[in-house]
Amino acid sequence: MEIDVAALHPALDDPALNSMNFLNEIAQHYPDAISLAAGRPYEEFFDVDALPRWLDRFRRHLADDLGHDPGRITRTLFQYGRTKGILHELIARNLALDEQITVDPEAVVVTVGCQEAMFLVLRALRAGPRDVLLAVAPTYVGLTGAARLLDFPVRPVAGGPAGIDLADLRAQLDRARAAGERPRACYLMPDFANPSGVSMSLADRRRLLDLADSEDLLLIEDNPYGLFPADDDGTRLPTLKALDERARVVYLGSFAKTVLPGARVGYVLADQRVRGSDGTVGLFADQLARIKSMVTVNTSPIAQAVIGGRLLEHGCSLVEANVRERAVYAGNLRHLVAGLARRFPAPSEVGWNVPRGGFFAVVTVPFPVDDALLTRSAREYGVLWTPMAHFYDDTAAVNALRLSVSVVTPEQIDQGLDRLAALLTDELARRKVSVS
Amino acid sequence: MEIDVAALHPALDDPALNSMNFLNEIAQHYPDAISLAAGRPYEEFFDVDALPRWLDRFRRHLADDLGHDPGRITRTLFQYGRTKGILHELIARNLALDEQITVDPEAVVVTVGCQEAMFLVLRALRAGPRDVLLAVAPTYVGLTGAARLLDFPVRPVAGGPAGIDLADLRAQLDRARAAGERPRACYLMPDFANPSGVSMSLADRRRLLDLADSEDLLLIEDNPYGLFPADDDGTRLPTLKALDERARVVYLGSFAKTVLPGARVGYVLADQRVRGSDGTVGLFADQLARIKSMVTVNTSPIAQAVIGGRLLEHGCSLVEANVRERAVYAGNLRHLVAGLARRFPAPSEVGWNVPRGGFFAVVTVPFPVDDALLTRSAREYGVLWTPMAHFYDDTAAVNALRLSVSVVTPEQIDQGLDRLAALLTDELARRKVSVS
Repeated sequence: MEIDVAALHPALDDPALNSMNFLNEIAQHYPDAISLAAGRPYEEFFDVDALPRWLDRFRRHLADDLGHDPGRITRTLFQYGRTKGILHELIARNLALDEQITVDPEAVVVTVGCQEAMFLVLRALRAGPRDVLLAVAPTYVGLTGAARLLDFPVRPVAGGPAGIDLADLRAQLDRARAAGERPRACYLMPDFANPSGVSMSLADRRRLLDLADSEDLLLIEDNPYGLFPADDDGTRLPTLKALDERARVVYLGSFAKTVLPGARVGYVLADQRVRGSDGTVGLFADQLARIKSMVTVNTSPIAQAVIGGRLLEHGCSLVEANVRERAVYAGNLRHLVAGLARRFPAPSEVGWNVPRGGFFAVVTVPFPVDDALLTRSAREYGVLWTPMAHFYDDTAAVNALRLSVSVVTPEQIDQGLDRLAALLTDELARRKVSVS
Repeated sequence: MEIDVAALHPALDDPALNSMNFLNEIAQHYPDAISLAAGRPYEEFFDVDALPRWLDRFRRHLADDLGHDPGRITRTLFQYGRTKGILHELIARNLALDEQITVDPEAVVVTVGCQEAMFLVLRALRAGPRDVLLAVAPTYVGLTGAARLLDFPVRPVAGGPAGIDLADLRAQLDRARAAGERPRACYLMPDFANPSGVSMSLADRRRLLDLADSEDLLLIEDNPYGLFPADDDGTRLPTLKALDERARVVYLGSFAKTVLPGARVGYVLADQRVRGSDGTVGLFADQLARIKSMVTVNTSPIAQAVIGGRLLEHGCSLVEANVRERAVYAGNLRHLVAGLARRFPAPSEVGWNVPRGGFFAVVTVPFPVDDALLTRSAREYGVLWTPMAHFYDDTAAVNALRLSVSVVTPEQIDQGLDRLAALLTDELARRKVSVS
C-alpha cells in the first residue's frame, strides 16, 4: 500500500520537523568532522557499570526509606505504575536543594524526557482554533515541532540580548488578542538558553512575572542548562519558578544534561489550580497526567530508578553530582570565547556573544548562514555547527550560527575554530570579490 | 493561577479519559477486594535480580554480535539515540520466529509502550477534519482516549462473535464516505481481544484483508495477547500481518504482557510506502519516527536493553520465554470458564463466552451493568470486575461485564466467582421483586 504524504498530518511536510533530520543526517554523513553542533552532554564520565548500582540504590530507597516489602518493590519496578511517576518526592527534594523551589510533590509529573513534558502542556493548552502559543525567538526546535503536531500556532516574541523583549511580548499579546486569538502561554528558557546562550537578568525575571500577572498569562519555563554556570564562583540566578508566587509558571525539568539522556526521564511541575466542570478544584499536573495516560501510560519505572539512584547517591543535589561536568562545560565555554577573540581580533566583521553558562554561543557574520554553507563547511572544512535560521519559525535569512561545546575537548574546540575561521575568512573574501 | 477545565483540551472533560481513572480509583479504594478487573500480567515470575543480568546480556550482544567498542556501547545506552530505536533487528528476528512475519527492520519503530505506537499512528493519519477512524467495538479504552486527544472521531464497527462484522464494516465505510468523511483506518485486536476475549477465524482474516484491499483501507492490528492461547496444543492462528501481502496492515506490538510492563517498550511495524511531496518514496515507519522525535525523542535505550536482554536469553522467541506464563493464563482461563458453568448451571439468565486464549472473558446478564453496580460489588461483595459499558464509545447501557484472570490464582478465581455469583443472584432477585 502507498500513502501520499499529503494525506498525512501537515506537520510531516513542515520545515520544523525536517530541520532536526537534516542536522542529524549531515552529522552522520560527515562523522570525521569536528562537531561544534551536537548539544549532547559530555560523555567521558559516563559509566555503564553505574546502572546496576543506581538501580540497587533506588531499590534500597524503596525498602529502607519507604518500607516497601520485596513484592511491592518488584511490582513498582516491573508493573504498570503511577501515571505521575515515582520520583516526585526525590524531585521535590532536588528542587528545594538546588533551586530553592518549594514543591508539592503531587504537582510533579515525571515524563519521557522533557520533550513529553512540553508535548503534554501544549496538548492541554491547545483547546481550540483561537489558541496560539507565544515563544521567545530563537526557539528550541522541539517546542516548535511539538506545537506543529498539535496544530498550535507559535507567535515569536523577540528575545534579544536581554533574553526576552518585554515590550515585544506585550505587543504580541495585544496583536494576537486584537486578531481574536487567545494567547495561552509564553515559552522561554531564562538560563543559558538553547540556542542563544542568553540569560535573563533578575530584574527582567521579576518584570516578566509582573507582566504575566497583569496580562493573565501562563509562562512555560524550560531549564535544561541552569546547572551549568560558567562564572568561576558558579553564581546562578533564581529561576522564574523560584520567584513565582502566584503559580504563573509551569516549570519543565530535564535529567538529560544533569544525569544522562538515555533514561529519557524529565518532568513538569504544574501547580496551577484547575476548576473542573463539576466545580471541584485540582492540580494542572493531574490534567497533564490524564493526557499522559493516553500518550505513554507512565514513564518507565526502571528508567526512573536509574535517575533516582543517581539522585540518592548525591543526597538529591544535582549541583553536587555535576561538579566535574560543570567544570568541563565552563572551561570549554571560556575556551571557545577566548578562541573566537584570538581568531577574529577587533575590528572584525565576525561577532559573538559571551554566555554566562550553558552549552552554546552564537557567532554573527555579515552574510546569511544557510544549510548550503553548513554542507560546504562539513565537506570542505571538516567542522559542524548549526545555522541559527533553524531556530526561527520562518524562512527569513539569519546571519548567525550556533556553536556548542558540550561534547568536545579544548583541543577539538581549537581545531574546530581554526576550520570555522578558515571557512568564514574564505566566505568573506568570496563575497567581497563578488560585490566588487 | 486558576484555570477553568473548559479552557483546556476538550478530551480532558471526556468520559473516555475518565473511565480509566474511575476504574483505577475504585481498585485503590477497595484494595482487599479480589480483582477480576486488573489486566496486568502475572507477577509471580518477576525477578528484580534479572534486570542487571538482562542489561549485561544486551551489552554483550552489542560487543560480541555487533562488534561495538566500549565507548560506543556507553553512548548507545547513555546518550540520545536512534529515533526508531535499537531493538529493530531483534524484533524482526522475534517476529520471524514467533509470528512467521518477515520484516524489514527499518520498518520497525520502537515506542514507549504500545500506547505511544497507537498515538503516533493516529497522529499521522488524522490529517484534517474529514478524517475518521473505524474501530471494532467493544474497543480498548487506550485507543479511544488517544483518538480523543487528537480530535480524531472514532466510528464503531460491530465486533460480534466473529471478532468483526464485515458487513457492518462495509456499511460503516459507506456511511462515513456518504457523509463526506474520510475513513483512514480500522483498528482491531484479532487475537483474544481486550475486552471481548474473541478471536477472528482464519477465513474472516482473509476476508478482512480482501475487503481492506477493495476498499483501499488501512488496518491497525493490535496484538498484545496473541502469545497466550488456552488450547492444550497451544495452536495460534496467523496474525493479519502474517497474511498481509499488500502492506495493508500496520502492526502494533507490545512487550508489556510478554516481558514486563515497567520497561514501557512496544513497537509499531509500518512497512507501507509513503510518497513525499518531492516524489521520493520512504517507509510509513520513518514518518512515524518524525512524529516520535517531537513526542518522546526516542525510547529509553536502557529500557530497550532490558527487553533486548530478555529476548536474547531466549533466542528472540517470546513463545519460549513465556512457557510458564502461558500455562498460568491458560489454566486460569479454563478454571474461570469451568467455575462459571458450575455456578450458573443451564438454564441460566447469566451467560459468558469461552475465549480460546488471552486474559479476558465476558459475562452477560439480563440487566444493565454500570459503575454503581461495580461500586456495590466492591463494597458489599468484595470483588472487582469491569463494566463492558466502559469499552463502548457512547452512553448506551450494556448488559455485560469483563472478567480478567491474569493476576489471580485459581483459589482467588473461585473466591471471586463465589462473590460475583452472590452479587448477580441478589441482583436478579431484587429486579424480579421490583417488577412483580
